Amino acid sequence: MDPLPAEEVRRLVQAALTEDIGGGDVTTLATVPAEARARAKVVARESLVVAGLDLAEAAFRALSEAVQIRRHLSDGGRAAAGQCLMELEGEARALLSAERVALNFLQRLSGIATLTAQFVDAVKGTRARILDTRKTTPGCRRMEKYAVACGGGQNHRFGLYDLVLIKDNHLAALREELPDAIAAAVDRARRRFPQLKVEVEADTLEQVQQAVTAGADIVLLDNMTPEQLRAAVILVGGRALTEASGGVNLANVRAIAETGVDFVSIGALTHSARAVDIALDFETGPMGGCVTPAFVQ
Amino acid sequence: MDPLPAEEVRRLVQAALTEDIGGGDVTTLATVPAEARARAKVVARESLVVAGLDLAEAAFRALSEAVQIRRHLSDGGRAAAGQCLMELEGEARALLSAERVALNFLQRLSGIATLTAQFVDAVKGTRARILDTRKTTPGCRRMEKYAVACGGGQNHRFGLYDLVLIKDNHLAALREELPDAIAAAVDRARRRFPQLKVEVEADTLEQVQQAVTAGADIVLLDNMTPEQLRAAVILVGGRALTEASGGVNLANVRAIAETGVDFVSIGALTHSARAVDIALDFETGPMGGCVTPAFVQ
Amino acid sequence: MDPLPAEEVRRLVQAALTEDIGGGDVTTLATVPAEARARAKVVARESLVVAGLDLAEAAFRALSEAVQIRRHLSDGGRAAAGQCLMELEGEARALLSAERVALNFLQRLSGIATLTAQFVDAVKGTRARILDTRKTTPGCRRMEKYAVACGGGQNHRFGLYDLVLIKDNHLAALREELPDAIAAAVDRARRRFPQLKVEVEADTLEQVQQAVTAGADIVLLDNMTPEQLRAAVILVGGRALTEASGGVNLANVRAIAETGVDFVSIGALTHSARAVDIALDFETGPMGGCVTPAFVQ
Amino acid sequence: MDPLPAEEVRRLVQAALTEDIGGGDVTTLATVPAEARARAKVVARESLVVAGLDLAEAAFRALSEAVQIRRHLSDGGRAAAGQCLMELEGEARALLSAERVALNFLQRLSGIATLTAQFVDAVKGTRARILDTRKTTPGCRRMEKYAVACGGGQNHRFGLYDLVLIKDNHLAALREELPDAIAAAVDRARRRFPQLKVEVEADTLEQVQQAVTAGADIVLLDNMTPEQLRAAVILVGGRALTEASGGVNLANVRAIAETGVDFVSIGALTHSARAVDIALDFETGPMGGCVTPAFVQ
Amino acid sequence: MDPLPAEEVRRLVQAALTEDIGGGDVTTLATVPAEARARAKVVARESLVVAGLDLAEAAFRALSEAVQIRRHLSDGGRAAAGQCLMELEGEARALLSAERVALNFLQRLSGIATLTAQFVDAVKGTRARILDTRKTTPGCRRMEKYAVACGGGQNHRFGLYDLVLIKDNHLAALREELPDAIAAAVDRARRRFPQLKVEVEADTLEQVQQAVTAGADIVLLDNMTPEQLRAAVILVGGRALTEASGGVNLANVRAIAETGVDFVSIGALTHSARAVDIALDFETGPMGGCVTPAFVQ
Amino acid sequence: MDPLPAEEVRRLVQAALTEDIGGGDVTTLATVPAEARARAKVVARESLVVAGLDLAEAAFRALSEAVQIRRHLSDGGRAAAGQCLMELEGEARALLSAERVALNFLQRLSGIATLTAQFVDAVKGTRARILDTRKTTPGCRRMEKYAVACGGGQNHRFGLYDLVLIKDNHLAALREELPDAIAAAVDRARRRFPQLKVEVEADTLEQVQQAVTAGADIVLLDNMTPEQLRAAVILVGGRALTEASGGVNLANVRAIAETGVDFVSIGALTHSARAVDIALDFETGPMGGCVTPAFVQ
Repeated sequence: MDPLPAEEVRRLVQAALTEDIGGGDVTTLATVPAEARARAKVVARESLVVAGLDLAEAAFRALSEAVQIRRHLSDGGRAAAGQCLMELEGEARALLSAERVALNFLQRLSGIATLTAQFVDAVKGTRARILDTRKTTPGCRRMEKYAVACGGGQNHRFGLYDLVLIKDNHLAALREELPDAIAAAVDRARRRFPQLKVEVEADTLEQVQQAVTAGADIVLLDNMTPEQLRAAVILVGGRALTEASGGVNLANVRAIAETGVDFVSIGALTHSARAVDIALDFETGPMGGCVTPAFVQ
Repeated sequence: MDPLPAEEVRRLVQAALTEDIGGGDVTTLATVPAEARARAKVVARESLVVAGLDLAEAAFRALSEAVQIRRHLSDGGRAAAGQCLMELEGEARALLSAERVALNFLQRLSGIATLTAQFVDAVKGTRARILDTRKTTPGCRRMEKYAVACGGGQNHRFGLYDLVLIKDNHLAALREELPDAIAAAVDRARRRFPQLKVEVEADTLEQVQQAVTAGADIVLLDNMTPEQLRAAVILVGGRALTEASGGVNLANVRAIAETGVDFVSIGALTHSARAVDIALDFETGPMGGCVTPAFVQ
Repeated sequence: MDPLPAEEVRRLVQAALTEDIGGGDVTTLATVPAEARARAKVVARESLVVAGLDLAEAAFRALSEAVQIRRHLSDGGRAAAGQCLMELEGEARALLSAERVALNFLQRLSGIATLTAQFVDAVKGTRARILDTRKTTPGCRRMEKYAVACGGGQNHRFGLYDLVLIKDNHLAALREELPDAIAAAVDRARRRFPQLKVEVEADTLEQVQQAVTAGADIVLLDNMTPEQLRAAVILVGGRALTEASGGVNLANVRAIAETGVDFVSIGALTHSARAVDIALDFETGPMGGCVTPAFVQ
Repeated sequence: MDPLPAEEVRRLVQAALTEDIGGGDVTTLATVPAEARARAKVVARESLVVAGLDLAEAAFRALSEAVQIRRHLSDGGRAAAGQCLMELEGEARALLSAERVALNFLQRLSGIATLTAQFVDAVKGTRARILDTRKTTPGCRRMEKYAVACGGGQNHRFGLYDLVLIKDNHLAALREELPDAIAAAVDRARRRFPQLKVEVEADTLEQVQQAVTAGADIVLLDNMTPEQLRAAVILVGGRALTEASGGVNLANVRAIAETGVDFVSIGALTHSARAVDIALDFETGPMGGCVTPAFVQ
Repeated sequence: MDPLPAEEVRRLVQAALTEDIGGGDVTTLATVPAEARARAKVVARESLVVAGLDLAEAAFRALSEAVQIRRHLSDGGRAAAGQCLMELEGEARALLSAERVALNFLQRLSGIATLTAQFVDAVKGTRARILDTRKTTPGCRRMEKYAVACGGGQNHRFGLYDLVLIKDNHLAALREELPDAIAAAVDRARRRFPQLKVEVEADTLEQVQQAVTAGADIVLLDNMTPEQLRAAVILVGGRALTEASGGVNLANVRAIAETGVDFVSIGALTHSARAVDIALDFETGPMGGCVTPAFVQ
Repeated sequence: MDPLPAEEVRRLVQAALTEDIGGGDVTTLATVPAEARARAKVVARESLVVAGLDLAEAAFRALSEAVQIRRHLSDGGRAAAGQCLMELEGEARALLSAERVALNFLQRLSGIATLTAQFVDAVKGTRARILDTRKTTPGCRRMEKYAVACGGGQNHRFGLYDLVLIKDNHLAALREELPDAIAAAVDRARRRFPQLKVEVEADTLEQVQQAVTAGADIVLLDNMTPEQLRAAVILVGGRALTEASGGVNLANVRAIAETGVDFVSIGALTHSARAVDIALDFETGPMGGCVTPAFVQ
């Protein structure tokens, strides 16, 4: 996947540091001499897919440009429990004051990447690809969608602006005045935004048929059983892409994927991933002693 | 709890709408006439403690000041599955374009409030109060701590600036040069920041003793068993407040609370709460028909 | 067309007023008493299509909320030379200090709308629609694309993010390594961004063929003669939308449109429209004496 | 002329890139490998005076600090059609994603500089200097006035704050209460802002006389014929500077200049300059092969 | 004097409240119920000239729009010790949380206004007017210059952009290459910025002569004795305005003013005014009981 | 003391330069060639404690990164009259254009540091430490509190968020409903913000007794005579820290300090310090000739 743009990294890290440090890290200012130096390792405490290393690194560097950093993994890589992700050496104050912000980024984004990877693994061998949704934390969409990509998922639309997605509520406004709401809505969208694809939500096979007939590029098959999905895929017959959504979990995702849909979109990837356990261990031995699976071979 | 300041609400909502809408909600612009009106209900799809109604309301109002809103609950209130939280009536475009942003706030914050309330319920009858941590989403700390308060929890420090919290890593920098690191660190903090409280992390009973002797206001009992916690509370003997942390979950929180500690702090409240299921249902009947448990009696 | 979002209006007006007024409108402060009131008319000095009335109005209101404003036309309307677009009454200082900023918006945007309308009129009766491009003034894209819509044109992509448009320079990077660059590029784009349409630039009929075969949604026919365009349209045969671009002017646009292309895109709409002549006339008669073609009938 | 301040360059470039790239340059991300490198030339497609090279350069560097750039001209220099202005070598993605933003700056500013130079050339040998106005694109005044300076023009006031310019509308507010409005207005301005120059707009020779008598530093001769201008210059007799404005174009500017006025101010320099044609040519030969008039001698 | 622009008031108040309140006014949140109401008076504790009432009012209103405010004086008015400047009634929390910010504005700006008024009083009857300088608190220039105007002083240039002021250091750069530096510098400034006035600093009568000969609009007489000032004024003979500066205090300002200079500029007005004593008294009687000299007559 | 964070330095310097330079330093642009170079010394014109060197340096560097700077003192150091604080060499334009901004920072902050040092010297040998207050210039608190630290003072709370300080006005709201307002208020604060210290304002010995009994961490002894302070200190008996405030000046501070209080807080440190005299002397000799007391030994 492509890295988060440097400007987005800077914006996110700056906001997080301002929020956390405010008038000053009083503990560190009071107890740690300005000239003290330290070494630390970022360590995975459980098996995970890592995401957010650029953000973590930027948090430390924002407080001291001279911090030396050695990465042992890249975003998207898998780490075993106990594995060292990154080593740091520099001003003790900078390492201590940025610790929480760096870990907050890493734990949350790696949590998303790890959950995504479990879904991606679960559908391996089918044609289905795992998509995220717009159910992201307000203000954090780009980094959360980046984390989905780190986990092997694919990004659905970035916002309301880059894809027309006609849902039942849009049709409700039209239905009162028009006989064939789906066709009418697709047609309006085509004329107004010819450069954009049009996706239509369908709750029934009848609606699937209407969507395809109307020329939808993608049909969103909402809350259907695997049997309905299979029938819908046959009905579409390759004339549009198909996306299954609604109530997807690790237990049923493979059955859904095996129906032949092109995409499975899952809100939980971003709205309900738990943080994974990553810690910053300060140490006293010589730098470079990061004896981990990723490093020793 | 006190409401989120109006300025913070505005900042969060503005950022979220900009992120989601960007150049325009193309679907709504193309399919829904500017003059169309709609009614909708915000409905809990599962049992939950609600948080974020101000943010949700501000999202709709940001797109149309004239939207009429009727709330059936306040933040901190408990809703049964199926209960209507809020009714809306106004420009259909505004309701549709703000829907996802409003729900993203509500689902995430109510998720935090609901999880917090489960912990608070679990320790009912003990002296222990449930605290959050600094393990919050970058840029979202104030709203997430607000959600913890909605769930009946209490807020720990807001950042690195309003409490001295001396951890092992701070001591590590001092230990090399000083015989009694805890006493030295507390003393430095007292002199440098006389207006702030000092908390000291202790991993062993010996460190608990040192922290109390050094005059710590609060002792953080990190990763101790209930037996160790009980011994620590006795050792402290009321000379400082006690806070248990590390590995707390719904299964063990009551046992921890019964050791007599003053606080139990739990990172998962903010870093691993799943979103609860809340939906926006568009409807066609006359407004006010919100026949829900909260409304009919 | 949909209005510019209120937030964008505010941002643009605030920036313009700050830029122009800086530390203060010294002339007005020195010569015009704070309590003086005035009336003024915004008058078209030449025949034009108007755009930017919201911006002009916001400029006056930003300096005095109590300014009374009566519009005699809406954005997108046509005004004859001498016609009154808007009447104002209120604090003389506010009218004088905002005059230039209000006119700068109106003259520039109406200039774009007027030029666009000339192109739209020129192709009337053909299937071709007039499109703008990304050749806009840095920082002003949304208002300039809005002005194009006021003139009856349609908006092409808003930025690099909402449509894949593969040009020769993109292919150049691929050509070295791949036998069939267009097919490869379309395929990569499809897989990476399934929710977006793909447009391909073609300079020759051979490339048109390759683009259609590769499944492009739109083919950009760059710098072709009407004969080539006609052949390209036949070759495409409805399998994709067609867009003509390059060297389009009022003299040749009809010939281009008559080739059957779906779109004609014209950079000059935004990069080379001249400002139209609009003035603010201060007056002494009673308000409402705006005797103009729009008003008297 | 003095360069645009680095901070202004950064602000403008950042805003333009954000506006254009948004969530990502999807075409480039999908089709161009991260490691691909490219060379390109910025080439004048018509004869022009160049302006905006700092902005163009900053756009490329903002996306990749390592881009190598060789300029063959400085801002203010004249280029023949076909001449290479700048060569670039570096990450292909950065060159492609910044191309449009860089060209938008260059084409617009060089358009202003080129038009200005035509006016400057037209008055060569007279005492008159060419001035711009405040009729600039909202938010872009500094860069547009910079472009005027690149074309050999001079900058009139930067905003409402650095020169008192009393126009008829200011006098209208005073006239009702005072017998000699011009004298009264100049006097008020002198007392209130002793550190600023005072310019007075005059539409008739009588007003010219009043302005000079009142002690105006500059007299704005608005919409006068060459005969009137000549009479006004004689009347002023060196007691003030004289500025002609209103309806100036390339056909009449020399006649106006030959009346002896000190300045001719022209709104069209900034509000109606068309963009000049400048292109970015990607190439495959070895860097340095920029065989252009500026380079080969 | 003209009021501070509403936008500047908002900017200053917002920054000050954010700086002071941060995460919350913990004392007020903990001790004062949300529904509590209070009344308070802003009272002058010493004789003063008031400035900053708009800022104070905006601070209270920013926290509660419904606060009722009655002013008993306007900015620029003189208050005796004990006099009530403003009464407030509304949410107790808003009054308490905004108190310090409101007073910080009032005390500082009234301090500047009061000191200015002492200088203005001291030169009454002479032609000299009291000017401020650019020696203001970084970021606060507009409000500090506004306070000078409230005290009856006049504003010197607002920044480096609105007046050419040639000092010895500018000449130093030129002197090496040119025989007559002052004439050369004035001439360059005239040509480059014809719309701006030119002031020249003179330390000796010889330099005064050179400045006047060069056509300076204003001569800055720096650090001269009253005798030298008198001679300089005679030498200038009305051909330019004269400004005395350097080492001015309340003891010598009248002697300086009586030399006939047009202006006396004083850095201390803004860089060394002490805050005057103004307090917020909370009270329990019925609102309107503000029995003060300004109110009872 | 710890340095101002780099980000705060950048923010302050940027705002100050924008405010002062605006559209351009017209004098320098007109008279000083772009290639001219200069040397200058920052010289103390009176005895002082220096503060703000980072800000001054940043102001020069913001205009020219290549300016060479040699410091002869650090913030917090004492300079005799005539002593050179810093030498500069580089672009003449950058030195001239940043001069005033750099001096404004230095003069104001060194003024605060110098006044603070006088108070600190006055209480030498007692246990009392000198504290600042929240009576700072709006928007400048961090730099002003930094200057207090440079003068040897200590910082009181940074805002309303990091210490509970219960004053009479808070109690007034409670007193109506509660018999023992101080105890009630302390208790509420303890429960609501267990991580914060609680300070209570006491005007009488009776209130001192109540505050201590209620468990206040710090007692603010407001406007007490030395006799009352002495009695209060005895009454407190080490159970809380004691802070004297109100009407403190250089004449009475030692008597107050000798009563045994822990802190003396003084608003005048920040709200009424006069600027000290510091100048920028441009020179012509070879760099390094800074023959000053600090440099020659």
